[in-house]
Amino acid sequence: MLVCVVLLLVTLCAQGGNGEDIQRPGHVSVVIVGGTGDLAKKYLWQGFFQLYVNHVSSGNTFSFYAGGLSPPEKANPVFFEILKAVTCPKDVSQEHCALLKEQFLRLSAYRQLKTLEEYQDLSKHIEVRLQQEGLTEAGRLVYLSVPAFAYADIAEKINSSLRPADGAWLRVVLEKPFGHDFRSAQVLASQLESSLKDQEMYRIDHYLGKQVVAKILPFRMENKKSLDPIWNKHHIERVEIVLKETLDVKGRIPFYDQYGVIRDVLQNHLTEVMTLLTMRLPMNLSSIEEVLQNKLQILDSLLPIGKNQAVIGQYQAYKTQVQQELNMTKDHFSITPTFAAVLAHIDEAQYDGVPILLISGKMLDERVGYARILFKNDIFCLQNHNSIHCKPKQIVFHFGHGSLQYPAILVSKNLFKPVLKDSDWKEVTEHKDISVLGLPVSDYYVHTPVEQREAYSELISHIFAGRKDNFISSENLLASWEMWTPLLSSIATTFPRIYPGGAENGDLLDVHLKGKEISYHSKVVMISNNPMADMAADGFQVLQGKFRGTEMVSAWAEELVERLATDLQEAAEEAVREGGVFHLALSGGSSPLALFHRLALHHFTFPWRDTHVWMVDERCVPITEHQSNFRNLHDHLLQHVRIPYYNIHPMPVQVSQRLCVEEDGGAVLYERDIKKLVNGSSFHFVLLGVGFDAHTASLFPGSKIDQHGESLVALTESLTKPHQRMSLTFSAINRARRVALLAMGKSKHEMITQLSRVKDNPEKWPVTGVKPSGGRLVWYLDYDALLG
Amino acid sequence: MLVCVVLLLVTLCAQGGNGEDIQRPGHVSVVIVGGTGDLAKKYLWQGFFQLYVNHVSSGNTFSFYAGGLSPPEKANPVFFEILKAVTCPKDVSQEHCALLKEQFLRLSAYRQLKTLEEYQDLSKHIEVRLQQEGLTEAGRLVYLSVPAFAYADIAEKINSSLRPADGAWLRVVLEKPFGHDFRSAQVLASQLESSLKDQEMYRIDHYLGKQVVAKILPFRMENKKSLDPIWNKHHIERVEIVLKETLDVKGRIPFYDQYGVIRDVLQNHLTEVMTLLTMRLPMNLSSIEEVLQNKLQILDSLLPIGKNQAVIGQYQAYKTQVQQELNMTKDHFSITPTFAAVLAHIDEAQYDGVPILLISGKMLDERVGYARILFKNDIFCLQNHNSIHCKPKQIVFHFGHGSLQYPAILVSKNLFKPVLKDSDWKEVTEHKDISVLGLPVSDYYVHTPVEQREAYSELISHIFAGRKDNFISSENLLASWEMWTPLLSSIATTFPRIYPGGAENGDLLDVHLKGKEISYHSKVVMISNNPMADMAADGFQVLQGKFRGTEMVSAWAEELVERLATDLQEAAEEAVREGGVFHLALSGGSSPLALFHRLALHHFTFPWRDTHVWMVDERCVPITEHQSNFRNLHDHLLQHVRIPYYNIHPMPVQVSQRLCVEEDGGAVLYERDIKKLVNGSSFHFVLLGVGFDAHTASLFPGSKIDQHGESLVALTESLTKPHQRMSLTFSAINRARRVALLAMGKSKHEMITQLSRVKDNPEKWPVTGVKPSGGRLVWYLDYDALLG
Repeated sequence: MLVCVVLLLVTLCAQGGNGEDIQRPGHVSVVIVGGTGDLAKKYLWQGFFQLYVNHVSSGNTFSFYAGGLSPPEKANPVFFEILKAVTCPKDVSQEHCALLKEQFLRLSAYRQLKTLEEYQDLSKHIEVRLQQEGLTEAGRLVYLSVPAFAYADIAEKINSSLRPADGAWLRVVLEKPFGHDFRSAQVLASQLESSLKDQEMYRIDHYLGKQVVAKILPFRMENKKSLDPIWNKHHIERVEIVLKETLDVKGRIPFYDQYGVIRDVLQNHLTEVMTLLTMRLPMNLSSIEEVLQNKLQILDSLLPIGKNQAVIGQYQAYKTQVQQELNMTKDHFSITPTFAAVLAHIDEAQYDGVPILLISGKMLDERVGYARILFKNDIFCLQNHNSIHCKPKQIVFHFGHGSLQYPAILVSKNLFKPVLKDSDWKEVTEHKDISVLGLPVSDYYVHTPVEQREAYSELISHIFAGRKDNFISSENLLASWEMWTPLLSSIATTFPRIYPGGAENGDLLDVHLKGKEISYHSKVVMISNNPMADMAADGFQVLQGKFRGTEMVSAWAEELVERLATDLQEAAEEAVREGGVFHLALSGGSSPLALFHRLALHHFTFPWRDTHVWMVDERCVPITEHQSNFRNLHDHLLQHVRIPYYNIHPMPVQVSQRLCVEEDGGAVLYERDIKKLVNGSSFHFVLLGVGFDAHTASLFPGSKIDQHGESLVALTESLTKPHQRMSLTFSAINRARRVALLAMGKSKHEMITQLSRVKDNPEKWPVTGVKPSGGRLVWYLDYDALLG
Repeated sequence: MLVCVVLLLVTLCAQGGNGEDIQRPGHVSVVIVGGTGDLAKKYLWQGFFQLYVNHVSSGNTFSFYAGGLSPPEKANPVFFEILKAVTCPKDVSQEHCALLKEQFLRLSAYRQLKTLEEYQDLSKHIEVRLQQEGLTEAGRLVYLSVPAFAYADIAEKINSSLRPADGAWLRVVLEKPFGHDFRSAQVLASQLESSLKDQEMYRIDHYLGKQVVAKILPFRMENKKSLDPIWNKHHIERVEIVLKETLDVKGRIPFYDQYGVIRDVLQNHLTEVMTLLTMRLPMNLSSIEEVLQNKLQILDSLLPIGKNQAVIGQYQAYKTQVQQELNMTKDHFSITPTFAAVLAHIDEAQYDGVPILLISGKMLDERVGYARILFKNDIFCLQNHNSIHCKPKQIVFHFGHGSLQYPAILVSKNLFKPVLKDSDWKEVTEHKDISVLGLPVSDYYVHTPVEQREAYSELISHIFAGRKDNFISSENLLASWEMWTPLLSSIATTFPRIYPGGAENGDLLDVHLKGKEISYHSKVVMISNNPMADMAADGFQVLQGKFRGTEMVSAWAEELVERLATDLQEAAEEAVREGGVFHLALSGGSSPLALFHRLALHHFTFPWRDTHVWMVDERCVPITEHQSNFRNLHDHLLQHVRIPYYNIHPMPVQVSQRLCVEEDGGAVLYERDIKKLVNGSSFHFVLLGVGFDAHTASLFPGSKIDQHGESLVALTESLTKPHQRMSLTFSAINRARRVALLAMGKSKHEMITQLSRVKDNPEKWPVTGVKPSGGRLVWYLDYDALLG
């Protein structure tokens, strides 16, 4: 890490920003901490020079400081090399450019910025200069181009020593990574908040400075009329957001290996693009609050991304690079991914079922970044299949590079003719003979910026203007981490597929979308030292046996749930065939969730229309509360299947706006409903869980279960909160045609072991009271519960 | 119409059918009524000759009669020409063939069959022969190859005169058309039932005899493992069932013009194929009952097909052909379609949203019939886009003709390798250099029948064997007509698009799928003399004005509903923005149905998750009954949107299992819920209708409305059944922020006119009591209601 400082100062006439924000004209001090680092060298000084050129004759004056850890004698030559390399915009004449560069050089200086004193010195220096030159201070812009771990410390130093006097602004710019997961992002955010106000922080994602990315919302707005009818699940086949790179990460391993491609690219750049593409259009594009709110809303509606929604890869040479750069031995390897393809889904009616692919990788065949909205094939061509309208329909936001080589928005001609109101954009009508994503470029309407601007320059001008709309708010950041953190944890021990790099990758990284899941298309033997891999591979088997003298099915969790779902569907089909209706009673708790998930995703043919869903037990809380078993069942299953409203039977725990009061007769009501609708009060299928204390339904040990008599439904009490419960009784359960007892997870192992040994004693081990008189009982135990 | 009869008789050794049915061996008399007509000439005699060849040396004896209206001297030469043209299967030697043909000729005779006496004579003739030859009768097979209008009469004659003696079977074969709509099919079915038993009737759809069509179910069964995971909405992009013909209908106009392509092809052939493709697989393929039940189930789940789900066309020369063949003047034209493309949807979770296209037409560019299941693009190809797995995935049931020229089942190689267990099928591995539906034939696994058999021969052998599984049951037939009749009525006055025919059609008949609707892709000025066309075109406008001193919106029905839906959505969005929740109260009745339909199909962004739905009024019937307003709302709207269960508030008309008993306090319960959940009991939006007697909600004239006082909910009485109602009161309605009063249709015009003149008098005109105290009232009246 390099941190140093250079300084210079100049006085020029200038005026305020470009109108977005009312600013006091005056002197602006720019400090780039890490001012001689890679990013600064490549983009930042060029960006600030651009800013200087734009504002040199318009009201403000500037001074630029490069801060660093090295002493000036070491840093100065580096810094001047950087400054010499900056270039003027095309429309500036050569002589004028030479003059501007000379001025810029005089205004810029390096300063060592390591200790608090050095920060205080810089501040004093600025104040002295302001006084000497008789300048009013407009503000101070501090750009932190340093590793994230240094942020909190530097922010504190800025807070205590570099704040300008009242009336002038302070803006501190931060570069990603902003944390490496939700927790660390939260910690970092709160550390920064203790030093800086929210409006002082500009979290930069340079993707938001890319002209095409910045144009997404305006494009959607300007073409609302054409897009509204097609921007939904009925028309969108899928969305792809792709950043392919050809380079590797050699030289950056110490940083990269801690992050990997998901944290480096997907969590920020690609997520931002996805948000812009799918968020609800704000009424007012310039309302930062509304834009933010809508962004948060869409992030909030994302379905959880799990292990099955991602595949990861690592280029082959990465291993050696890690060994070299981290000084590791030859047997060391890293599982940090350098390629990832992730499948997201938005849980909104508008996008229901639309796959959103987020893909990025190093060492691929070409450098290109784009977002493609591919529309469904909605034309049936009867005779002439070569017409343009028979071809694929798509909109491509082409960020840059690729075969096209310039940033552009492409709309296939069979879709609509887009409107781009901004005069900064023009239509391209002469095309090279190339294809973009399967279509000749001449089959598109192509629009490109009149003048190509670099993302950093663009964003620097926004910071200068005080425009925060293209920066990442802390809520936005945390919402994004909330999306990515569970996935990152779940793949933390997954071995990436190794790919050779470049054209040689062939179709090794092609991915296959299966329903809501994703996998590599081709199967390959994985090159890994992971002994678990073999185990998992042959672990897919179902064991049938006996448990407590009755039928038992056991398997790994996933297989077990699949089997249970299949058995349940068979029972449902049989019941519907026989009597036109299936009465199913379901338990609360967490074990059935995997079953609900599977039923919702895979069992399309389940006869929901003829199924009645009853509750095995309920907590005495309103059914709208998250603690409610019904709410749980509703959110994870009922909401996702087409079951008639009147086939759903929540327990009436709330009668007369009171919860489980004996006199309100809720249990009696439910019993009456069962007797009325269920033939012989005999459910076709009852799904039960088992608690650590061997309770089942809401029948707890020592709770005088025998007092329920012939009642089908009773109020009961639990030792854990909420204490009051309503439950089916053994009378009801044991009348069922089929009862499934489900227990999963290592935590249940001890109890299951105990149960395998004890005799029936429902007072002590309530679950031992489950003994269907005329029906069939099956235990479903996963290997963890059964074998520990 | 020609009806005549020829006869012959022969004795041969034979044995029963091919095992599907236990049959008494013996003599079989075959009668083709209409035996010298086109169909008989082209297919039937060849089919029966084939039957004869197959069974000549296996137990049965035969005689064949061609029946007709002409006298024998006129018909005989025609008949012998037909018989001479029949051909032997390839595996029969030339000499043997000559022998077989000679025998067949001797067994066949023409008979005039016009009067009842002639039928009686035929029967006597058969009996005499049986006696003379000492033969046991196995059965009589009567094939009606005559226009459908003659069926009932002939069936009666058969019943009264042609029945064989006990122990022998009677089988009567009927050719489509089986009616021209639901009603006529029903009439025909009941006429036939009075003469023939169900098991005696064989309704033939020769498509079911096509080898590929007959293989659809077995193919689905044999490949269940591969198909199960992909045979659903997540994987199927769409289904196309297409029969393209190059011929016109010249010479057949008197028949064709009464039917058109939908009745001629779509209602039968294509519907059958659709059923086979989408029906639930039976457990047992040979269970006719189960197959039928599953067919009926899928037909029952079809969403209604309306005007917007079909486009029709007519080839240009049709007009002149009609004038010539029907002896019409030059200004006569017919609007019978010769081309139709129809979009069907199945309302099952498995196929939810999957478009099913049924397309057929005369005078198109090629002759081909196929069903294609096109799968979604579920592979993302990162680098190498030419891999086979990056290409489209599809299964093509190729019935015949087209570029392939033979019947086959094609599965694209990137999908799976199909299994065809039947030894009658073989894999084709050497391919011509052709493409089938966008893919080179070498990209498919191709299976074809070892021996190509003609559909009629195939079905005739089934009839002989008593196998009914490939025939149309009367339930199946009626279900199909139930599907098609509403569409046929709704397009009865629609002008078909005129197309030139053949290659010249270009892309004139290409169709565009828009959500659940379909239209021609290209817009053309219609060549028609229809003055209504212009009117409809500029009728799309919305009128804003005043009605009874308050705001009014008026438009044609469709536009009005669109506007109301938009206003409703805006109100919902505003409410959710402001307070996070939208309380909507909806009326029963038929007017809102169009609104519900529109909301379900178009308003993806409606904030259902934050919407609470309340009832304006309810009939005192269980909510599961079709009379229930809630049931109506449920089936047409709630079932189709993602609204949480606990946001739905049906009126508690049934408490303690009794309906609307004052003491049960249902109204009080509902009022309590409103007060608890709705801020200030002020709904955001109340949708009301207006009855012919000016009632609104369930507030009827002369029902002492003023007695409700401050109550929000009351029990009321209606003059029409069911008399008892529950309703919001004016107190509740007039607290609303916004009230919409909707009236549509000419039948409302008189009442609306009256309302425009009368003063407020809620006792007499209840709707005049709607006066929101702090809210806004808008009347939505369609032009029919407003202008009559």
